[in-house]
Amino acid sequence: MAKDYRQMWESIGVDLEAHDKLLNVLPPTYGQVYMSQENRPEGMEYFDFVISEVHGLRIQELQEHKAAGGKVIGAFCVFVPEEIVRAAGGICVGLCSGVEIGAAKAEKVLPRNICPLIKSFMGFKLGKVCPYFESCDMVVGETTCDGKKKAFEILNDYVPVHMMETPQMKREKDKQLWRSEVQDFLVKVEEFTGSKVTDTSLRQSIKDINGKRRALLRLSELRKNIPTPISGKDCLLIEQIAMYDDVPRFTAQLNALCDELEVRVKEGKGFAEPAAPRIIVTGTPMALPNWKIPHIIETSGAVIVAEELCTGLRYFENLVPEEAENTGQMVEDIASRYLNINCACFTPNEGRMEKLVNLAKEYKADGIIHCSLAFCDPYLVEANRVENILKENDIPMLKIETDYGQEDSGQIKTRVEAFLEMIDKK
Amino acid sequence: MAKDYRQMWESIGVDLEAHDKLLNVLPPTYGQVYMSQENRPEGMEYFDFVISEVHGLRIQELQEHKAAGGKVIGAFCVFVPEEIVRAAGGICVGLCSGVEIGAAKAEKVLPRNICPLIKSFMGFKLGKVCPYFESCDMVVGETTCDGKKKAFEILNDYVPVHMMETPQMKREKDKQLWRSEVQDFLVKVEEFTGSKVTDTSLRQSIKDINGKRRALLRLSELRKNIPTPISGKDCLLIEQIAMYDDVPRFTAQLNALCDELEVRVKEGKGFAEPAAPRIIVTGTPMALPNWKIPHIIETSGAVIVAEELCTGLRYFENLVPEEAENTGQMVEDIASRYLNINCACFTPNEGRMEKLVNLAKEYKADGIIHCSLAFCDPYLVEANRVENILKENDIPMLKIETDYGQEDSGQIKTRVEAFLEMIDKK
Ligand code: SF4
Ligand code: SF4
Ligand code: SF4
Ligand code: SF4
Repeated sequence: MAKDYRQMWESIGVDLEAHDKLLNVLPPTYGQVYMSQENRPEGMEYFDFVISEVHGLRIQELQEHKAAGGKVIGAFCVFVPEEIVRAAGGICVGLCSGVEIGAAKAEKVLPRNICPLIKSFMGFKLGKVCPYFESCDMVVGETTCDGKKKAFEILNDYVPVHMMETPQMKREKDKQLWRSEVQDFLVKVEEFTGSKVTDTSLRQSIKDINGKRRALLRLSELRKNIPTPISGKDCLLIEQIAMYDDVPRFTAQLNALCDELEVRVKEGKGFAEPAAPRIIVTGTPMALPNWKIPHIIETSGAVIVAEELCTGLRYFENLVPEEAENTGQMVEDIASRYLNINCACFTPNEGRMEKLVNLAKEYKADGIIHCSLAFCDPYLVEANRVENILKENDIPMLKIETDYGQEDSGQIKTRVEAFLEMIDKK
Repeated sequence: MAKDYRQMWESIGVDLEAHDKLLNVLPPTYGQVYMSQENRPEGMEYFDFVISEVHGLRIQELQEHKAAGGKVIGAFCVFVPEEIVRAAGGICVGLCSGVEIGAAKAEKVLPRNICPLIKSFMGFKLGKVCPYFESCDMVVGETTCDGKKKAFEILNDYVPVHMMETPQMKREKDKQLWRSEVQDFLVKVEEFTGSKVTDTSLRQSIKDINGKRRALLRLSELRKNIPTPISGKDCLLIEQIAMYDDVPRFTAQLNALCDELEVRVKEGKGFAEPAAPRIIVTGTPMALPNWKIPHIIETSGAVIVAEELCTGLRYFENLVPEEAENTGQMVEDIASRYLNINCACFTPNEGRMEKLVNLAKEYKADGIIHCSLAFCDPYLVEANRVENILKENDIPMLKIETDYGQEDSGQIKTRVEAFLEMIDKK
């Protein structure tokens, strides 16, 4: 990092010793996973910079925002409508939880066998390790999966949690429930920030967030080319950064990168050989800095062309209509857009099945790798449905269950290599 | 069993070989766990008989009911309103899933690390082992926990599943959703059975099920005495049988047992010494034949005086009002009664916390043992809330996480004994 931020970290309550441990791990990992890639687009420089300043510059921005009376609201799920936070002048940050830290502390309040993402965010909070988490004035919980739903009760002992009830099905009455939850969230955010959400501010916010989504969609479109102009690892990084970076800056930088990629495509320049197997990854979110599986895949000769993940397409694939006249209609539109997300927490979740089959066609994928975090019942059980539909459509699939440790990397690499070989022979 | 039922089992599609394996385990376990108890009430004879005929007589009754055009509907959760099934002339049976069977088959469609109850019911179905399951024309699923919610999608490949959406919270809008789910269930049951639910039939059914609940409550009341007149193991058995036995017969037999227990109480006769530590068990359901922890507790010198379980108080502690004039009002009353169940799937679940503190007082308990099945996030995470409230109220608590295997029995026994000793010294 360019500056010494220790004083800032200390002032917001971060445990410097624990934080040092994190900083001892993160940059070397980044160097190894990212900087080792060849032939990267120049536009990645911005995103490299963001990571190099991950707990510095952006945290400083959040602190300045807070000093000026603004609020920071944390989210753990792509169901939290950031449009509303932004419309009330707040900043919404995704709290990543992609690294095992503070597990011992987390296990004092959580069972040992629980999804690593949940253990991670609890460890972060109990250990006061994450300056983003420590910057949050409030966090938003949801009733998506059991582990998170119940862990928010405990988290609420340490930071105010506002719960949103995500329904379990997607029928008309569920839509009604969800619409009402979005409306309640708006009221809560207004109260909490002390700022009214107006027709104008919400309309503008919808446009801003759509702008971010459009840039991400543009990036996705470019990856449909053979060869794909950028690595899947770089794209995952961009998708991870999308969750906490400043919205207009991120959008502009990503569009600049896409301009560059368009030229690359015209020139036929790609990240990998045109013949490299094209893979779609699907499953549980890969939160920063969880790059394990993509790194294994792309160092085994394949290229990832799409992420059917919440750190991926599920985060940006649908836009909110921009034509609504008043806040009521906008809330309705926001609710509908979010309820289109194909999370395995819903039953059934047929949208995801159709989506995967379509993605394989659109992105000319040779195979799909289903990655689940350990103990994640929604995705691990739904993997059976995915398996069936992909078999029906003759799309090769590999199923991986893993956590944030590195112990199984060798074994996973072996399985991925065997899978790629099998695809190659097809 | 008195008769040879093999032909009946075969005719309903049971895999006789797999079923034999079950029968080789069940009766010896029962002998060891139940018949070894001293000083049992005579009224337990009926329940012993029910178990001795567990796959015989009752299955024959179900088959006769079906032959006469009746339907059998299976349930996996105490949220399924059996009043409605009964009012339409159907029989509702709880599908127990308290034994590890067919795990290899289940693991073909489910993750390896999943709650044993879920793995068990999937194994039963895929292995065609359980004559109750094979007798069911339809089963009712619910969106309580992730594992079950998603497993029902797979189960639906093998038997028709009707899903009820249990809400995740308990606010007014959740009540509305649940009311509508109960109403939809009524319509579904009418369609499925071809019988109309009338004001009269529903009122009678409410009375019948309340009668069963009143008998179970009477049994509970009697256990408040020192010494308690009956073992916790026997009570658990009765509570397990309540879920599939014929309603009026069960009610009559249980009331007869309670008559006998009243005499016992007057005579000061108890199952254990008056000084024996009094324990309440709480946590995940203990489905037939999962008697592991109660057996350990009661062979370590303590007596269980109440089960804050779905195979226990949660199943019968609230009645449905009997005064409603029409079906609409009755549906409303049924919905309210069921939504009072303190399942850990809700957030928050404060009712359970208050309940536990009150139960400890009412039943003069010396300690509470929190038992969770492995990988059950709702109860394992909520255990933290339980721990806090019991500490505040100075009620000793022991936390156990286990599955259907016997490997950890020795270790659990050691922990239970240490806990009882600690209580004794207090
Ligand atoms: S997987 Fe589901 S619960 Fe998790 S972030 Fe995505 S939408 Fe939310
Ligand atoms: S990965 Fe699965 S268990 Fe973990 S937080 Fe997401 S949905 Fe929940
Ligand atoms: S613990 Fe919850 S989900 Fe399980 S049977 Fe009881 S009420 Fe239903
Ligand atoms: S014990 Fe827990 S995980 Fe298992 S079925 Fe019941 S609520 Fe679900």
